[in-house]
Amino acid sequence: MMTKLLRHVVLFGFKDDTSPEQIEPIEQTFVALPDKIDLIRDFEWGTDVSVEGLSQGHTHCFFVTFLSEADRDAYLPHPAHKAFVELIQPHLAQVTVVDYWANS
Amino acid sequence: MMTKLLRHVVLFGFKDDTSPEQIEPIEQTFVALPDKIDLIRDFEWGTDVSVEGLSQGHTHCFFVTFLSEADRDAYLPHPAHKAFVELIQPHLAQVTVVDYWANS
Repeated sequence: MMTKLLRHVVLFGFKDDTSPEQIEPIEQTFVALPDKIDLIRDFEWGTDVSVEGLSQGHTHCFFVTFLSEADRDAYLPHPAHKAFVELIQPHLAQVTVVDYWANS
Repeated sequence: MMTKLLRHVVLFGFKDDTSPEQIEPIEQTFVALPDKIDLIRDFEWGTDVSVEGLSQGHTHCFFVTFLSEADRDAYLPHPAHKAFVELIQPHLAQVTVVDYWANS
């Protein structure tokens, strides 16, 4: 039987006046979350290279995997996640979050 | 060395007057694409179960993996993909697409 995986898809877009020098530590803070939060089962991220013109202002995707909704629910208020949210909040122009159960 | 994977993240939201009976064949048409298009290396999808209120009207995520931008570029105009786009287009209220190179 395959393990069920809960995918947490987070898309961000930054304000026009947010510089690359401000974005880099934000990226690194998210990248450091799996080391701080054991509930994260898998993690990947990257910047948009789509060609369809449908990114709706999002430039970053963080793709976080949990094993249960309980783990996701415990991740959201985790101090390390909340510190990340506080860091990125002033720079956010767009944010979209969709979670789904992988059934591939 | 890890294989580099190009993730193609597609989020949809449907119009209010689109019924579940209309959505189901749309889902199944997307699900059938990997059998019709060899360029698709991996595929999963699901409906939104997020709890943050940031889905921005999207209810579906399709997560398609390619091995190269050339494969992605050949997928987009593939007749089977174009037939899917024609099928969903009249029912779309929201669509967001972000591609990224996985570096996990």
